[in-house]
Amino acid sequence: MNGAQALLKALTDAGLDTCFTNPGTSEMQFLYEVAQTTGVRAVLCLQENTASGAADGYARMAGRPAFTLLHVGTGFANSIANLHNAGRAHVPMVNIVGANATYHQCNDPEHELVNGRITDLARVVSHWTQEARTASELGSLAAQAAHHSRLGAGKICTLVAPTDCHWDPAVAPPDCAAQPAAPRASAATIGEIAGLLANGKKTAILAGASALHGDCIELAAQIAAKTGADLLGDSWAPRLDRGEGSVQVRLIPYVAEMALQFMAPYQQLVLVGAQRPVVTFAYQGLPVSKVPAGCTVTTLATVDHDMRMALEDLAQAVGAKGASTARQARTQCPVPTGTLTPAAVGQSLCVLLPENAILVDEAITMGLATFELTKGARRHDYLFPGCGGAIGAGLPHALGAAIACPDRKVVALQADGSAMYTNQALWSIARENADVTVVLLRNDSYAVLHFEMARVRTGEETSALRSLLDLDRPTIDWVRMAESQGVPASRATTAEEFHQQLQAALATKGPRLIEAQVTQDLQPFLQLVRGGRP
Amino acid sequence: MNGAQALLKALTDAGLDTCFTNPGTSEMQFLYEVAQTTGVRAVLCLQENTASGAADGYARMAGRPAFTLLHVGTGFANSIANLHNAGRAHVPMVNIVGANATYHQCNDPEHELVNGRITDLARVVSHWTQEARTASELGSLAAQAAHHSRLGAGKICTLVAPTDCHWDPAVAPPDCAAQPAAPRASAATIGEIAGLLANGKKTAILAGASALHGDCIELAAQIAAKTGADLLGDSWAPRLDRGEGSVQVRLIPYVAEMALQFMAPYQQLVLVGAQRPVVTFAYQGLPVSKVPAGCTVTTLATVDHDMRMALEDLAQAVGAKGASTARQARTQCPVPTGTLTPAAVGQSLCVLLPENAILVDEAITMGLATFELTKGARRHDYLFPGCGGAIGAGLPHALGAAIACPDRKVVALQADGSAMYTNQALWSIARENADVTVVLLRNDSYAVLHFEMARVRTGEETSALRSLLDLDRPTIDWVRMAESQGVPASRATTAEEFHQQLQAALATKGPRLIEAQVTQDLQPFLQLVRGGRP
Repeated sequence: MNGAQALLKALTDAGLDTCFTNPGTSEMQFLYEVAQTTGVRAVLCLQENTASGAADGYARMAGRPAFTLLHVGTGFANSIANLHNAGRAHVPMVNIVGANATYHQCNDPEHELVNGRITDLARVVSHWTQEARTASELGSLAAQAAHHSRLGAGKICTLVAPTDCHWDPAVAPPDCAAQPAAPRASAATIGEIAGLLANGKKTAILAGASALHGDCIELAAQIAAKTGADLLGDSWAPRLDRGEGSVQVRLIPYVAEMALQFMAPYQQLVLVGAQRPVVTFAYQGLPVSKVPAGCTVTTLATVDHDMRMALEDLAQAVGAKGASTARQARTQCPVPTGTLTPAAVGQSLCVLLPENAILVDEAITMGLATFELTKGARRHDYLFPGCGGAIGAGLPHALGAAIACPDRKVVALQADGSAMYTNQALWSIARENADVTVVLLRNDSYAVLHFEMARVRTGEETSALRSLLDLDRPTIDWVRMAESQGVPASRATTAEEFHQQLQAALATKGPRLIEAQVTQDLQPFLQLVRGGRP
Repeated sequence: MNGAQALLKALTDAGLDTCFTNPGTSEMQFLYEVAQTTGVRAVLCLQENTASGAADGYARMAGRPAFTLLHVGTGFANSIANLHNAGRAHVPMVNIVGANATYHQCNDPEHELVNGRITDLARVVSHWTQEARTASELGSLAAQAAHHSRLGAGKICTLVAPTDCHWDPAVAPPDCAAQPAAPRASAATIGEIAGLLANGKKTAILAGASALHGDCIELAAQIAAKTGADLLGDSWAPRLDRGEGSVQVRLIPYVAEMALQFMAPYQQLVLVGAQRPVVTFAYQGLPVSKVPAGCTVTTLATVDHDMRMALEDLAQAVGAKGASTARQARTQCPVPTGTLTPAAVGQSLCVLLPENAILVDEAITMGLATFELTKGARRHDYLFPGCGGAIGAGLPHALGAAIACPDRKVVALQADGSAMYTNQALWSIARENADVTVVLLRNDSYAVLHFEMARVRTGEETSALRSLLDLDRPTIDWVRMAESQGVPASRATTAEEFHQQLQAALATKGPRLIEAQVTQDLQPFLQLVRGGRP
C-alpha cells in the first residue's frame, strides 16, 4: 500500500464516498486511486470555490462530510470563500490539498507561497489543519480529519498532502470511523433554563446551525409551545425544515434596523446552536448587537454540544415532550400575472414547488419577497448557502444538494451578481445531470450595495457611482451563459412566462435555468436607511 | 478629511490611479470617494481573482502599481491565486481590503474567519501586511504600502481597512511618493562575476523578473555577447521583449526532462533577478534541481537590488557597454492551411501579430508550439501571467494590460481550462471596451494532467480517469460564453477560418474572442515521460 492508497482507505473507511475536485499535478497519484475505485463518486469542478460550496451543500443534505481534493496553496485559496461559508454554517468537511514533496518545499518552487506555507493559509479558515510528513502519516491524519470533521455540528478539516507522501509505502491507516460523542448539556444548565422559561418574562429560543431542522427543531418547537416562548432562527439558516406542516420558526431579519425592531420585545434569549445575534457590519449611529439592552442571553447548547440531547433533556424538564405545536398551513397563492417581480417569482414557487424539494436561496435582496411567499409552499428543505456572508455559494450548493439527494428536486433561487462568482458550477450541474432548476433572478445590479451606499452617500448616485454597483453595460445573458456550459435555458420577462417555464422545468428531471428578468423596487430599502433624504 | 479621503489621497499622491475592484458593504465609504474623484480609473470586476490578475497585468505593462479594492476576508481569498502569481513575478501591487469596524470584530459577526483574522490570511501571500486601527493610520499606512510596493522589482502590499477607519476624521497622510532606492550590487560582486565570465567555462546568464525586458535585457545581452556567455530566461517570464529586432533569450523549459537536457552543458550560472532553477513538482527518480551537478551558481543581483545598475556596472567591468548583439530576425511563416493545430495558430500569429502588440500567454500545453512560432513575429511584449503556477491569470492579465496600454493591441492566447477559472474577466473586457483579442484554444481537456497522469498510472487511462481530466461531456461553447458577457465571438475549426477571423479581429479595435477548436497531439509529451510504455 502506498500513501495515496492509505489516504483513500482512511477516507472511505470513514464513510466519505463523495469527492468534489479540481486536481493538479501534485494530486495525480491520489486521483489515480480515486478513479480506480468504485467506492468514491468524484465530481469534477472547474474552479475550486464550486468544489467547496458543493461539499457544503452535500454535507447539509447528506448529514455527513464529503471531501474536496484541491491543488496546492492557490487551489485551496480559490476554495476559501465557500469553505468559510461552510465553517460558519458548522458543516463537516474534509479537504485534501496536494503539495510539493516534503524534500522539495525548501527549494521554493513557484507554487510555494511568498510568505508562508499552505498550512498557514488553511489554518485561518479551518478548525483542524495538518500536513503529512510521511506516507503512513497521510493515511493516519486522513482518518483523524474524517473523525474530527464530525465533532459537534461539524468542523472544517484540512490535510495537506505532499506528493512523496502519496507514492511512498505506507501502513494501513487506523480506524477512526466511529462518530465522535458530543458532550451533553449539564443538569445544572437544563435546570437553569427550565427556570428561565417559567419566570414569566418575554422569552425567545434562538436556534442556529443544525438545530434548525429535524428532531432538534421539533423539540425546540415543543418547548416553545409548552412554555410560551417564541421560536426564532438565525438570520442565516444552514438548513431549515419548511413549508406545509413544518414547525414555525421566525428568522431574525438581516437588516439592522429591522432586526432591532424585531428583537425589541424580548427580555430573555435562550441559544441552541446559535451565537448572540449581531449586525453583519457596524454602521455609524447604530448598535452592533441585535439583542436589546437588558435582555439576558443564556446558552442551552453550543454547536459543540449534543444539541438534540440538550433539547430532549430540556423538553423533559419542562414537560414539553410531545406537546402539540403549531404547524405551517399550505398557502393558497394565486398564479401571478403581469410584471415579473421577486414577489411574482415567490408566488409561482408557492404554487409549484414540489413536495420534498430542496430550495437553495442565494436571492439576496430579491429573496425577501420569495422567502415570505414560499413559507406556505409544499413541505421542503430550505438552505441558505452563504452563512459566512460570502457570495457565490448558491450554484455550488445546488450541485452538492443534488448529488446528496438524487431523488429530490433542487430549486436554486439565484441572484445574478452572486451567480457570476461561481458560474462554473453550471458545467458540473450539466455534467452530473443534476436535477437542478436554477431560477436566475436578474436585476443587473449588486442591489444590496445601492442600499448600503445610501447610508454613506451625500446627494443622488452619480453615474460613476452607479457604474461600480450595477451589472449593466453590458448586461449578462444568462441563457447564453447556461447554454455555453450545457444547461438548457430559457428567459422569462413576464410573470406568466415565468410561471409556465417553471412549471415545465419542475415537471421534468435534469438541469435547467430560467433567467427571470425581474423588476425590483428598491425604494422601501432605501427609505429604511435614509429616512426622508433622497 | 475622513479616513476614506485620507486613504484616497495617500494612494493618488503616490501615483496609484487605477483600481480593480469588487466592493462590498465595508468599502462603501471609500468607494464613494473613488467615484467622486476623476483621479482614479476604477474597473469593476465580477470576481476578485480578475481584479488581482488585472492589477498584475497592469503593473507589468505600466511599470507601476495599481490598487485593488476587495471585500473582507473572503473577497481577499478569492483574489489570492492571482496575487500569488503577481508575487512570484515580483510585481508591485497594493490591496485595500475592507473589514469590520475595529470595535465590532470581537463580536464575531459572520464575515470573521473561523480561526484567525484577514491579516493572517493576507500575510501568507503578501510581502507587507498591515491593518489600520484609526482613520489617520489608514492614510498613513496606505502611503507606506504604496511606497513599499515599489521596493526592488515590486512587492505585494495588503492593507486591511476597517469601516470605522473610513468614516472617522483623519489627518492628511504623509508623502511617501518618492521611488525607494534599491541597493547596488557591490564592487566585489561585480569583480567576482567579471572574473567568472572570463574563466573560459561554459556559462549562462539567467535573467528573471523585470530583468527580462527593457534596459536590463539589453545590457545582459551585451554582456553575453562580449563574454561568450549564453543568455537564458526564467521559464516563467513576467514580461519579455520579443519578436523582430529583440535580443535573443532562451527560456529554460518547464518540463523537467527537457530542462535537464537543456541545462546539461553549463558549468556556471550567473543569476540576475532569477532564483536557482528547480522543477515545479518533484517526480520519483528525477532530480529537483535544473542546475547540473558541478555547475556553480552566482548571484549578480536579486529582485531587491537595482538590477539595471548591476548590469550596467558589470557591462562596464567586462567592456561590454554598447557591444553589438544578435537580434531576432522576422520569420517568414506561411499562412496555415488545413487542420487547426496549436502550430497553425502560431503561424497565423507570426504572420498577423501587429507591431507593438502585447501577447499574453496562458496557452499551457498548446503554448509550446505557439511560443516557438511567434519568436520571429513583429516586435511585441510577451507576458506569461501564471508566474506562480496558478491558472486563471490570462484573461485578467489581458484586461489589465489593455487598461495600462490603451493604444496597443492585446492578444490573449488562452487555454480553455484556465480560461474557465476567471471567465468573469470577459465581462470587464467588454465593459471597458478593452482592445483585446482572445484566442481561446479549445482542446476540451486539462491536457497537462494527461501528461502528468502518464507518470503515475499503470495501463491505459480508464474512462473514469479521463472524466476527471477532460472538459467534455459537456464541451464548453466559448462563443456563447463570450457573447453572454458582451464580447463578440466567432468559432474557427480550420486553419483558414482561424486565420481569416484573427485577421479581422486584429484589424479592428475592441474586444473579440475567437474559439479555436484545435487538434492537439499529446503523444510527444506522453512519450517523453513514459518511454516505451503505453
